[in-house]
Amino acid sequence: MDDDPLSRLPDGWTLDETTPEEIEAQRQVYEPFTESLRELVDLGIRSDAALDDVRRAHEHLEAANALLRGQVTQSSYGVRIGNGTGRNWGNAIMGLRNALAPPLDIQTDGVSRSWCDFTLGAAYEGPPRLVHGGVTALVLDHVFGAAAGADQVPRMTGTLTITYRRGTRLGVPLRAEARVDRVEGWKSFVVGTLGDVEGTTVEAEGIFIQPRWARPS
Amino acid sequence: MDDDPLSRLPDGWTLDETTPEEIEAQRQVYEPFTESLRELVDLGIRSDAALDDVRRAHEHLEAANALLRGQVTQSSYGVRIGNGTGRNWGNAIMGLRNALAPPLDIQTDGVSRSWCDFTLGAAYEGPPRLVHGGVTALVLDHVFGAAAGADQVPRMTGTLTITYRRGTRLGVPLRAEARVDRVEGWKSFVVGTLGDVEGTTVEAEGIFIQPRWARPS
Repeated sequence: MDDDPLSRLPDGWTLDETTPEEIEAQRQVYEPFTESLRELVDLGIRSDAALDDVRRAHEHLEAANALLRGQVTQSSYGVRIGNGTGRNWGNAIMGLRNALAPPLDIQTDGVSRSWCDFTLGAAYEGPPRLVHGGVTALVLDHVFGAAAGADQVPRMTGTLTITYRRGTRLGVPLRAEARVDRVEGWKSFVVGTLGDVEGTTVEAEGIFIQPRWARPS
Repeated sequence: MDDDPLSRLPDGWTLDETTPEEIEAQRQVYEPFTESLRELVDLGIRSDAALDDVRRAHEHLEAANALLRGQVTQSSYGVRIGNGTGRNWGNAIMGLRNALAPPLDIQTDGVSRSWCDFTLGAAYEGPPRLVHGGVTALVLDHVFGAAAGADQVPRMTGTLTITYRRGTRLGVPLRAEARVDRVEGWKSFVVGTLGDVEGTTVEAEGIFIQPRWARPS
Protein backbone atom coordinates (compact mmCIF):
# COMPACT_ATOMS: atom_id res chain seq x y z
CA MET A 1 0.00 0.00 0.00
CA ASP A 2 1.15 3.50 -0.84
CA ASP A 3 0.46 6.43 1.44
CA ASP A 4 0.51 8.94 -1.41
CA PRO A 5 -3.16 9.89 -1.95
CA LEU A 6 -2.45 10.55 -5.63
CA SER A 7 -1.71 6.84 -6.11
CA ARG A 8 -5.39 6.27 -5.32
CA LEU A 9 -6.62 8.55 -8.12
CA PRO A 10 -9.10 6.71 -10.34
CA ASP A 11 -8.51 6.28 -14.08
CA GLY A 12 -8.69 9.54 -15.98
CA TRP A 13 -7.44 11.74 -13.15
CA THR A 14 -4.01 13.01 -14.15
CA LEU A 15 -1.46 14.85 -12.07
CA ASP A 16 0.26 17.04 -14.60
CA GLU A 17 3.11 19.48 -14.26
CA THR A 18 1.67 22.26 -16.37
CA THR A 19 2.66 25.62 -14.86
CA PRO A 20 0.10 28.33 -14.12
CA GLU A 21 1.56 30.33 -17.03
CA GLU A 22 1.15 27.38 -19.42
CA ILE A 23 -2.42 26.80 -18.23
CA GLU A 24 -3.19 30.48 -18.86
CA ALA A 25 -1.59 30.29 -22.32
CA GLN A 26 -3.73 27.25 -23.15
CA ARG A 27 -6.84 29.02 -21.91
CA GLN A 28 -6.12 32.05 -24.06
CA VAL A 29 -5.91 29.88 -27.17
CA TYR A 30 -8.61 27.29 -26.49
CA GLU A 31 -11.30 29.56 -25.08
CA PRO A 32 -11.73 31.64 -28.28
CA PHE A 33 -11.11 28.53 -30.43
CA THR A 34 -13.98 26.73 -28.71
CA GLU A 35 -16.21 29.82 -28.88
CA SER A 36 -15.70 29.89 -32.67
CA LEU A 37 -16.44 26.18 -32.78
CA ARG A 38 -19.69 26.74 -30.87
CA GLU A 39 -20.66 29.38 -33.42
CA LEU A 40 -19.85 26.93 -36.20
CA VAL A 41 -22.01 24.21 -34.63
CA ASP A 42 -24.84 26.77 -34.47
CA LEU A 43 -24.32 27.97 -38.04
CA GLY A 44 -24.12 24.37 -39.30
CA ILE A 45 -27.71 24.02 -38.12
CA ARG A 46 -29.15 27.44 -38.93
CA SER A 47 -27.35 28.63 -42.04
CA ASP A 48 -29.17 28.81 -45.36
CA ALA A 49 -25.91 29.44 -47.20
CA ALA A 50 -25.52 28.19 -50.76
CA LEU A 51 -24.32 24.58 -50.78
CA ASP A 52 -21.12 25.66 -52.52
CA ASP A 53 -20.33 27.91 -49.55
CA VAL A 54 -21.02 25.01 -47.18
CA ARG A 55 -18.59 22.89 -49.22
CA ARG A 56 -15.96 25.61 -48.95
CA ALA A 57 -16.57 25.86 -45.19
CA HIS A 58 -16.15 22.08 -45.06
CA GLU A 59 -12.71 22.41 -46.64
CA HIS A 60 -11.71 24.76 -43.83
CA LEU A 61 -12.92 22.21 -41.28
CA GLU A 62 -10.80 19.53 -42.89
CA ALA A 63 -7.78 21.85 -42.85
CA ALA A 64 -8.37 22.52 -39.13
CA ASN A 65 -8.71 18.79 -38.44
CA ALA A 66 -5.48 18.08 -40.29
CA LEU A 67 -3.68 20.59 -38.04
CA LEU A 68 -4.97 18.97 -34.84
CA ARG A 69 -5.28 15.30 -35.78
CA GLY A 70 -1.60 14.38 -35.60
CA GLN A 71 -1.03 14.99 -31.91
CA VAL A 72 -3.67 13.24 -29.85
CA THR A 73 -2.55 11.31 -26.78
CA GLN A 74 -5.56 11.03 -24.50
CA SER A 75 -8.73 8.99 -24.98
CA SER A 76 -10.60 11.81 -23.24
CA TYR A 77 -9.65 14.94 -21.31
CA GLY A 78 -10.41 13.60 -17.84
CA VAL A 79 -9.49 15.80 -14.92
CA ARG A 80 -5.99 17.25 -14.80
CA ILE A 81 -4.73 18.27 -11.43
CA GLY A 82 -1.79 20.49 -10.67
CA ASN A 83 -0.80 23.83 -9.18
CA GLY A 84 -3.94 23.99 -7.11
CA THR A 85 -6.37 23.59 -9.99
CA GLY A 86 -8.48 20.68 -11.25
CA ARG A 87 -9.27 21.15 -14.92
CA ASN A 88 -12.20 19.28 -16.49
CA TRP A 89 -11.93 21.15 -19.78
CA GLY A 90 -13.49 18.28 -21.75
CA ASN A 91 -16.65 18.00 -19.65
CA ALA A 92 -19.85 17.69 -21.70
CA ILE A 93 -21.61 20.58 -19.98
CA MET A 94 -18.81 22.56 -18.29
CA GLY A 95 -15.76 22.06 -20.47
CA LEU A 96 -13.80 25.12 -21.62
CA ARG A 97 -12.50 23.00 -24.55
CA ASN A 98 -15.81 21.22 -25.26
CA ALA A 99 -17.96 22.88 -27.95
CA LEU A 100 -20.95 20.80 -26.83
CA ALA A 101 -20.88 22.59 -23.47
CA PRO A 102 -22.66 26.01 -23.38
CA PRO A 103 -20.46 26.05 -21.09
CA LEU A 104 -22.27 26.43 -17.78
CA ASP A 105 -20.86 28.71 -15.11
CA ILE A 106 -22.30 27.15 -11.95
CA GLN A 107 -22.15 29.08 -8.67
CA THR A 108 -22.42 27.57 -5.19
CA ASP A 109 -22.72 28.89 -1.64
CA GLY A 110 -19.95 26.53 -0.52
CA VAL A 111 -22.39 24.59 1.64
CA SER A 112 -25.46 23.11 -0.02
CA ARG A 113 -26.81 25.35 -2.78
CA SER A 114 -26.00 25.90 -6.46
CA TRP A 115 -27.37 27.99 -9.26
CA CYS A 116 -26.60 28.85 -12.85
CA ASP A 117 -27.81 31.43 -15.40
CA PHE A 118 -27.55 30.49 -19.04
CA THR A 119 -29.15 30.59 -22.48
CA LEU A 120 -29.39 27.63 -24.87
CA GLY A 121 -29.32 28.09 -28.63
CA ALA A 122 -30.43 26.09 -31.65
CA ALA A 123 -27.99 23.23 -30.98
CA TYR A 124 -30.00 22.20 -27.91
CA GLU A 125 -33.32 21.83 -29.72
CA GLY A 126 -35.74 18.98 -29.06
CA PRO A 127 -39.33 19.86 -29.97
CA PRO A 128 -39.28 22.77 -32.41
CA ARG A 129 -38.16 26.05 -30.75
CA LEU A 130 -37.82 24.27 -27.38
CA VAL A 131 -34.87 22.91 -25.42
CA HIS A 132 -34.59 19.13 -25.67
CA GLY A 133 -36.03 17.64 -22.48
CA GLY A 134 -32.92 15.49 -22.17
CA VAL A 135 -30.73 18.60 -22.31
CA THR A 136 -32.62 20.11 -19.36
CA ALA A 137 -31.97 16.78 -17.58
CA LEU A 138 -28.26 17.10 -18.43
CA VAL A 139 -28.12 20.66 -17.04
CA LEU A 140 -30.05 19.70 -13.90
CA ASP A 141 -27.87 16.63 -13.31
CA HIS A 142 -24.79 18.83 -13.24
CA VAL A 143 -26.28 21.71 -11.24
CA PHE A 144 -27.66 19.18 -8.74
CA GLY A 145 -24.23 17.55 -8.48
CA ALA A 146 -22.77 20.98 -7.73
CA ALA A 147 -25.23 21.50 -4.84
CA ALA A 148 -24.53 17.98 -3.54
CA GLY A 149 -20.80 18.68 -3.73
CA ALA A 150 -20.87 22.34 -2.71
CA ASP A 151 -19.02 21.41 0.49
CA GLN A 152 -16.13 20.09 -1.69
CA VAL A 153 -16.98 16.43 -1.07
CA PRO A 154 -17.52 14.66 -4.42
CA ARG A 155 -20.93 13.04 -4.79
CA MET A 156 -22.23 11.20 -7.86
CA THR A 157 -25.79 11.02 -9.16
CA GLY A 158 -27.58 7.94 -7.84
CA THR A 159 -31.14 8.70 -8.94
CA LEU A 160 -32.60 11.69 -10.74
CA THR A 161 -36.33 12.28 -11.29
CA ILE A 162 -37.31 14.98 -13.76
CA THR A 163 -40.83 16.36 -14.12
CA TYR A 164 -41.61 18.51 -17.16
CA ARG A 165 -44.14 21.25 -16.38
CA ARG A 166 -44.01 23.00 -19.77
CA GLY A 167 -41.65 23.57 -22.66
CA THR A 168 -38.38 25.43 -22.07
CA ARG A 169 -37.71 27.95 -24.83
CA LEU A 170 -34.49 28.25 -26.80
CA GLY A 171 -32.76 31.62 -26.89
CA VAL A 172 -34.13 33.12 -23.66
CA PRO A 173 -32.43 33.59 -20.27
CA LEU A 174 -32.79 30.47 -18.13
CA ARG A 175 -31.86 29.66 -14.56
CA ALA A 176 -31.30 26.33 -12.86
CA GLU A 177 -30.99 26.05 -9.11
CA ALA A 178 -30.66 23.28 -6.56
CA ARG A 179 -30.27 22.73 -2.85
CA VAL A 180 -29.56 19.81 -0.56
CA ASP A 181 -32.83 19.07 1.21
CA ARG A 182 -31.37 16.51 3.65
CA VAL A 183 -28.45 14.14 4.15
CA GLU A 184 -28.70 10.51 5.26
CA GLY A 185 -25.38 8.70 5.63
CA TRP A 186 -23.56 8.78 2.26
CA LYS A 187 -26.72 10.03 0.51
CA SER A 188 -27.65 13.65 -0.17
CA PHE A 189 -31.23 14.39 -1.25
CA VAL A 190 -31.31 17.34 -3.64
CA VAL A 191 -34.28 19.30 -5.01
CA GLY A 192 -34.38 22.04 -7.62
CA THR A 193 -35.82 23.61 -10.73
CA LEU A 194 -35.03 24.94 -14.17
CA GLY A 195 -37.06 27.81 -15.57
CA ASP A 196 -37.38 31.12 -17.36
CA VAL A 197 -38.56 34.58 -16.26
CA GLU A 198 -42.13 33.31 -16.25
CA GLY A 199 -41.37 30.55 -13.76
CA THR A 200 -40.47 26.89 -13.49
CA THR A 201 -40.46 24.72 -16.61
CA VAL A 202 -38.81 21.61 -15.13
CA GLU A 203 -38.69 20.29 -11.58
CA ALA A 204 -36.35 17.62 -10.30
CA GLU A 205 -35.23 15.67 -7.27
CA GLY A 206 -32.19 13.50 -6.95
CA ILE A 207 -30.16 11.31 -4.64
CA PHE A 208 -26.40 11.88 -4.77
CA ILE A 209 -23.95 9.43 -3.28
CA GLN A 210 -20.45 9.94 -1.92
CA PRO A 211 -18.37 7.43 -3.88
CA ARG A 212 -16.40 4.83 -1.96
CA TRP A 213 -13.07 6.26 -3.12
CA ALA A 214 -14.01 9.67 -1.67
CA ARG A 215 -15.03 8.38 1.79
CA PRO A 216 -12.66 8.83 4.71
CA SER A 217 -10.76 5.57 5.24
CA MET B 1 -61.55 28.16 -38.07
CA ASP B 2 -59.54 26.62 -40.84
CA ASP B 3 -59.97 22.98 -41.80
CA ASP B 4 -56.40 22.69 -43.12
CA PRO B 5 -54.54 20.65 -40.47
CA LEU B 6 -51.30 22.44 -41.40
CA SER B 7 -52.76 25.67 -40.11
CA ARG B 8 -52.75 24.04 -36.69
CA LEU B 9 -49.01 23.29 -36.78
CA PRO B 10 -47.29 24.64 -33.67
CA ASP B 11 -44.47 27.19 -33.88
CA GLY B 12 -41.31 25.77 -35.43
CA TRP B 13 -43.05 23.26 -37.67
CA THR B 14 -42.54 24.45 -41.23
CA LEU B 15 -44.15 23.20 -44.39
CA ASP B 16 -41.47 23.75 -46.98
CA GLU B 17 -41.39 23.11 -50.68
CA THR B 18 -37.95 21.55 -50.89
CA THR B 19 -37.98 18.81 -53.53
CA PRO B 20 -36.68 15.29 -52.78
CA GLU B 21 -33.70 16.05 -55.04
CA GLU B 22 -32.90 19.23 -53.12
CA ILE B 23 -33.23 17.41 -49.79
CA GLU B 24 -30.81 14.75 -51.06
CA ALA B 25 -28.39 17.42 -52.28
CA GLN B 26 -28.49 19.08 -48.85
CA ARG B 27 -27.91 15.74 -47.15
CA GLN B 28 -24.89 15.02 -49.33
CA VAL B 29 -23.30 18.31 -48.33
CA TYR B 30 -24.33 18.59 -44.68
CA GLU B 31 -23.78 14.99 -43.59
CA PRO B 32 -20.00 14.99 -44.29
CA PHE B 33 -19.75 18.63 -43.15
CA THR B 34 -21.25 17.73 -39.79
CA GLU B 35 -19.11 14.59 -39.51
CA SER B 36 -15.99 16.76 -39.93
CA LEU B 37 -17.39 19.15 -37.36
CA ARG B 38 -17.90 16.26 -34.91
CA GLU B 39 -14.27 15.26 -35.43
CA LEU B 40 -13.23 18.86 -34.80
CA VAL B 41 -15.23 18.99 -31.56
CA ASP B 42 -13.44 15.79 -30.50
CA LEU B 43 -9.99 17.06 -31.52
CA GLY B 44 -10.61 20.39 -29.80
CA ILE B 45 -10.83 18.39 -26.58
CA ARG B 46 -8.19 15.70 -27.14
CA SER B 47 -5.49 17.30 -29.25
CA ASP B 48 -2.10 18.09 -27.76
CA ALA B 49 -1.11 20.10 -30.83
CA ALA B 50 1.24 23.04 -30.44
CA LEU B 51 -0.68 26.20 -29.56
CA ASP B 52 0.43 27.79 -32.82
CA ASP B 53 -1.29 24.97 -34.73
CA VAL B 54 -4.45 25.50 -32.65
CA ARG B 55 -4.31 29.20 -33.56
CA ARG B 56 -4.02 28.28 -37.23
CA ALA B 57 -6.94 25.85 -36.90
CA HIS B 58 -8.88 28.70 -35.26
CA GLU B 59 -8.29 30.86 -38.34
CA HIS B 60 -9.90 28.14 -40.47
CA LEU B 61 -12.91 28.08 -38.14
CA GLU B 62 -13.30 31.82 -38.50
CA ALA B 63 -13.10 31.49 -42.29
CA ALA B 64 -15.80 28.80 -42.20
CA ASN B 65 -17.99 30.95 -39.95
CA ALA B 66 -17.60 33.91 -42.31
CA LEU B 67 -18.86 31.74 -45.18
CA LEU B 68 -21.97 30.65 -43.27
CA ARG B 69 -22.75 33.62 -41.06
CA GLY B 70 -24.32 35.86 -43.71
CA GLN B 71 -27.32 33.73 -44.56
CA VAL B 72 -29.19 32.71 -41.46
CA THR B 73 -32.95 33.00 -41.42
CA GLN B 74 -34.21 30.62 -38.76
CA SER B 75 -33.89 30.91 -34.98
CA SER B 76 -33.60 27.10 -34.89
CA TYR B 77 -34.06 24.25 -37.38
CA GLY B 78 -37.40 23.05 -36.06
CA VAL B 79 -39.16 20.34 -38.04
CA ARG B 80 -39.52 20.84 -41.78
CA ILE B 81 -42.28 18.90 -43.43
CA GLY B 82 -42.70 18.25 -47.11
CA ASN B 83 -42.71 15.52 -49.72
CA GLY B 84 -43.56 12.88 -47.17
CA THR B 85 -40.64 13.59 -44.87
CA GLY B 86 -40.34 15.37 -41.53
CA ARG B 87 -36.79 16.60 -41.03
CA ASN B 88 -35.49 17.44 -37.54
CA TRP B 89 -31.92 17.94 -38.72
CA GLY B 90 -31.15 20.34 -35.87
CA ASN B 91 -32.21 18.00 -33.06
CA ALA B 92 -29.76 17.85 -30.14
CA ILE B 93 -29.43 14.06 -30.20
CA MET B 94 -30.72 13.02 -33.65
CA GLY B 95 -29.91 15.92 -35.93
CA LEU B 96 -28.04 15.23 -39.18
CA ARG B 97 -26.88 18.87 -39.14
CA ASN B 98 -26.19 19.03 -35.39
CA ALA B 99 -22.58 18.28 -34.40
CA LEU B 100 -23.67 17.83 -30.78
CA ALA B 101 -25.75 14.80 -31.83
CA PRO B 102 -23.82 11.49 -32.12
CA PRO B 103 -26.34 11.24 -34.04
CA LEU B 104 -28.48 8.41 -32.75
CA ASP B 105 -30.11 5.99 -35.19
CA ILE B 106 -33.12 4.80 -33.19
CA GLN B 107 -35.06 1.76 -34.38
CA THR B 108 -38.64 0.89 -33.39
CA ASP B 109 -40.96 -2.06 -33.88
CA GLY B 110 -43.73 0.30 -35.02
CA VAL B 111 -45.80 -0.54 -31.95
CA SER B 112 -44.24 0.00 -28.52
CA ARG B 113 -40.52 -0.79 -28.53
CA SER B 114 -37.37 1.13 -29.46
CA TRP B 115 -33.65 0.49 -29.35
CA CYS B 116 -30.42 2.10 -30.42
CA ASP B 117 -26.76 1.04 -30.71
CA PHE B 118 -24.15 3.75 -30.40
CA THR B 119 -20.77 4.77 -29.02
CA LEU B 120 -20.01 8.03 -27.24
CA GLY B 121 -16.62 9.72 -27.48
CA ALA B 122 -14.65 12.24 -25.44
CA ALA B 123 -17.16 15.06 -26.02
CA TYR B 124 -19.72 13.28 -23.82
CA GLU B 125 -17.46 12.99 -20.76
CA GLY B 126 -18.67 13.58 -17.21
CA PRO B 127 -16.55 11.82 -14.62
CA PRO B 128 -13.15 11.02 -16.16
CA ARG B 129 -13.38 8.30 -18.85
CA LEU B 130 -17.14 7.96 -18.26
CA VAL B 131 -20.20 9.24 -20.09
CA HIS B 132 -21.79 12.23 -18.32
CA GLY B 133 -24.80 10.96 -16.36
CA GLY B 134 -26.87 13.74 -17.88
CA VAL B 135 -25.93 12.59 -21.37
CA THR B 136 -27.25 9.11 -20.62
CA ALA B 137 -30.44 10.84 -19.44
CA LEU B 138 -30.57 12.74 -22.74
CA VAL B 139 -30.18 9.52 -24.75
CA LEU B 140 -32.77 7.68 -22.65
CA ASP B 141 -35.24 10.57 -22.90
CA HIS B 142 -35.13 10.36 -26.68
CA VAL B 143 -35.12 6.55 -26.94
CA PHE B 144 -38.03 6.43 -24.48
CA GLY B 145 -39.91 9.01 -26.55
CA ALA B 146 -39.38 6.81 -29.61
CA ALA B 147 -40.95 3.80 -27.82
CA ALA B 148 -43.84 5.96 -26.57
CA GLY B 149 -44.36 7.26 -30.12
CA ALA B 150 -43.53 4.05 -32.01
CA ASP B 151 -47.17 3.87 -33.12
CA GLN B 152 -46.70 7.27 -34.85
CA VAL B 153 -48.65 9.19 -32.21
CA PRO B 154 -46.47 12.00 -30.78
CA ARG B 155 -45.98 11.80 -27.03
CA MET B 156 -43.84 14.15 -24.92
CA THR B 157 -41.88 13.37 -21.77
CA GLY B 158 -43.93 14.07 -18.62
CA THR B 159 -41.68 12.47 -16.01
CA LEU B 160 -38.40 10.61 -16.30
CA THR B 161 -36.68 8.78 -13.44
CA ILE B 162 -33.09 7.70 -13.99
CA THR B 163 -31.21 5.31 -11.72
CA TYR B 164 -27.44 5.00 -12.15
CA ARG B 165 -26.18 1.47 -11.46
CA ARG B 166 -22.55 2.04 -12.43
CA GLY B 167 -20.46 4.24 -14.70
CA THR B 168 -20.99 4.07 -18.47
CA ARG B 169 -17.68 4.01 -20.31
CA LEU B 170 -16.71 6.29 -23.18
CA GLY B 171 -15.59 4.71 -26.44
CA VAL B 172 -17.28 1.31 -26.11
CA PRO B 173 -20.41 -0.04 -27.85
CA LEU B 174 -23.55 0.91 -25.93
CA ARG B 175 -27.20 0.02 -26.33
CA ALA B 176 -30.32 1.79 -25.09
CA GLU B 177 -33.71 0.16 -25.26
CA ALA B 178 -37.22 0.96 -24.10
CA ARG B 179 -40.73 -0.44 -24.19
CA VAL B 180 -44.18 0.80 -23.30
CA ASP B 181 -45.14 -1.08 -20.15
CA ARG B 182 -48.76 0.12 -20.07
CA VAL B 183 -51.05 2.90 -21.32
CA GLU B 184 -53.59 4.82 -19.21
CA GLY B 185 -55.60 7.44 -21.08
CA TRP B 186 -53.20 9.97 -22.63
CA LYS B 187 -50.30 8.56 -20.58
CA SER B 188 -47.84 5.88 -21.70
CA PHE B 189 -45.62 4.28 -19.03
CA VAL B 190 -42.23 3.41 -20.49
CA VAL B 191 -39.37 1.37 -18.97
CA GLY B 192 -35.88 0.73 -20.28
CA THR B 193 -32.15 0.59 -19.84
CA LEU B 194 -28.83 1.78 -21.16
CA GLY B 195 -25.80 -0.47 -20.94
CA ASP B 196 -22.68 -2.05 -22.40
CA VAL B 197 -21.73 -5.65 -23.22
CA GLU B 198 -21.36 -6.37 -19.52
CA GLY B 199 -24.94 -5.34 -18.75
CA THR B 200 -27.05 -2.44 -17.58
CA THR B 201 -25.41 0.77 -16.40
CA VAL B 202 -28.52 2.98 -16.19
CA GLU B 203 -32.18 2.09 -15.64
CA ALA B 204 -35.09 4.42 -16.25
CA GLU B 205 -38.84 4.74 -16.21
CA GLY B 206 -40.92 7.50 -17.67
CA ILE B 207 -44.41 8.79 -18.26
CA PHE B 208 -45.06 10.15 -21.76
CA ILE B 209 -48.08 12.25 -22.57
CA GLN B 210 -49.94 12.74 -25.83
CA PRO B 211 -49.98 16.54 -26.25
CA ARG B 212 -53.30 18.29 -26.59
CA TRP B 213 -52.57 19.38 -30.17
CA ALA B 214 -52.04 15.72 -31.17
CA ARG B 215 -55.25 14.39 -29.65
CA PRO B 216 -58.19 13.58 -31.93
CA SER B 217 -60.63 16.50 -31.85
